[in-house]
Amino acid sequence: MKILIAPWGNPGGWKEVTYVFDGKNMKSKTSLEILQEVIKPDKTIIICLDTLAEEGKNYKEVRENAERRIREYADKFGLSNYEVLTAPGIGTFPNGIFRGDALDYYHYIIAKLNLNFEHPNLDIHLDLTHGINYQTILTYRAVKEMLELFSIFKKTRFKAYNADPSSPTIADKLFINVVEDTIPIPMPSAEKISQGRPLEPVSLSSEEREKLFKNELENIKINNLELSAFIGALYNGLPLALFRFYPEKDKIEEVISTVLNTYEKYVEVKKEDKLKVTRKVRFGKDFKVYVFTYVIATLLKKL
Amino acid sequence: MKILIAPWGNPGGWKEVTYVFDGKNMKSKTSLEILQEVIKPDKTIIICLDTLAEEGKNYKEVRENAERRIREYADKFGLSNYEVLTAPGIGTFPNGIFRGDALDYYHYIIAKLNLNFEHPNLDIHLDLTHGINYQTILTYRAVKEMLELFSIFKKTRFKAYNADPSSPTIADKLFINVVEDTIPIPMPSAEKISQGRPLEPVSLSSEEREKLFKNELENIKINNLELSAFIGALYNGLPLALFRFYPEKDKIEEVISTVLNTYEKYVEVKKEDKLKVTRKVRFGKDFKVYVFTYVIATLLKKL
Repeated sequence: MKILIAPWGNPGGWKEVTYVFDGKNMKSKTSLEILQEVIKPDKTIIICLDTLAEEGKNYKEVRENAERRIREYADKFGLSNYEVLTAPGIGTFPNGIFRGDALDYYHYIIAKLNLNFEHPNLDIHLDLTHGINYQTILTYRAVKEMLELFSIFKKTRFKAYNADPSSPTIADKLFINVVEDTIPIPMPSAEKISQGRPLEPVSLSSEEREKLFKNELENIKINNLELSAFIGALYNGLPLALFRFYPEKDKIEEVISTVLNTYEKYVEVKKEDKLKVTRKVRFGKDFKVYVFTYVIATLLKKL
Repeated sequence: MKILIAPWGNPGGWKEVTYVFDGKNMKSKTSLEILQEVIKPDKTIIICLDTLAEEGKNYKEVRENAERRIREYADKFGLSNYEVLTAPGIGTFPNGIFRGDALDYYHYIIAKLNLNFEHPNLDIHLDLTHGINYQTILTYRAVKEMLELFSIFKKTRFKAYNADPSSPTIADKLFINVVEDTIPIPMPSAEKISQGRPLEPVSLSSEEREKLFKNELENIKINNLELSAFIGALYNGLPLALFRFYPEKDKIEEVISTVLNTYEKYVEVKKEDKLKVTRKVRFGKDFKVYVFTYVIATLLKKL
């Protein structure tokens, strides 16, 4: 099972150049086209940023707007057979001001990235050519860490690509370089639940805080001690403890989904001269533990 | 012991903006200034690319030229107390065309990055704000992997930063975001020597090939089987085997240094209308194994 993943910034300024890869040439505005042709992935996922949005009355509309724009670009570039994952970004742009924690991007994509639980082999190709800033590094880290989990149970391989750095006015031929080609090392996560708080307030009044923790996150009560025991059992290679503390997978899935919904509820959207998107909560470290525990529990079930 | 590391692209176009970090503001052309002030590192290392060079009759001069230009920028920006590591880059630029394997950058910096073997704590801060393209990801990977080795023997911590993505014409204030804050997991390398070839030909005639392997790399004969046994002993946690196969550290150091010198000897420098720098060999995967084995052997010795 081959999956090609590409973080994308704003495609507005991408020029047509000749991309060279694996002895082939292709004129295109994106490196993804030639990679799709040569690698022939079973699935291609473009990860874009919601900071591309130009309008939206609420966060759902903002995200849909960003995704629509990416699809328009991708279709115009001649791409087909791709999925789009729109993740939370930050920064000040002509179209809007987006405020929040940079790491929200990381937490969001580890929860939403649709890798394949079924297939015994997982062959991930990551094209870093068009990523911007923190997006590139956080996509790399998220994908690599997920693969280290998957590789406990599956045969995995990881390749990363980056086209030559160059302004197209100077070079019209850009080679696509292999910047990593590794077999991920099986690596159970060592992180444990700290406070059981998958969301943390960023800019909330004390009433909003109370509402968040008392109401919104009320029903995500989960036995954190048992989750930590389960993670520890895997990390220390204790098969009996692994069975003893095998968590309620559906319950964790529900928690993850509640946290994602609550996160989006606390994104404030205003439209003045431009969009103003403010995330009033951020994901906490414990959210990652929930996601990774869910992944491990699911993979164990499929053995 | 705090070390601040920053990969830098071409500082030519960096504009003065107000960087905001940890509640402080600072007008500067680089994020490194405020990070130095807040973090107060014992050492700051700027990793730049030789692609910055405008002239040079041979590779030594090319590298010195690039380093001199970076130092001019850094001094002009008001920085002090920094070291510069100039690593091999690729791409086509107004000043020159640089051809070679993108991964040379990674192999070069794992060998040359001067982390601290003595101090019991290692606190690494990585500023990714000014890195370009493959440089950012390969610096991140090199530093992270080195730290995973160091953390077998020392207390380590890793933080990575990236300023807001933004064109300074739109935002004059850029927040410096923490994009990672982790305790590296102790991780002995699992890679073993494959062919004992730390350098691979890229564009060599058959005579040059023969000269490379017969003459240049003649005296780097090392007992690869024993090296692999040593690595395996650490990976599998076998203390007796670790002593039994403890390698000749000085010999590995000599090999690494010979490989680095030979690599540079095979960089061809021409000056037509612009510089043309062509690397006729590339580092092989085995070079990484030599470097990592050297690091582990050194750290073991210091216990």
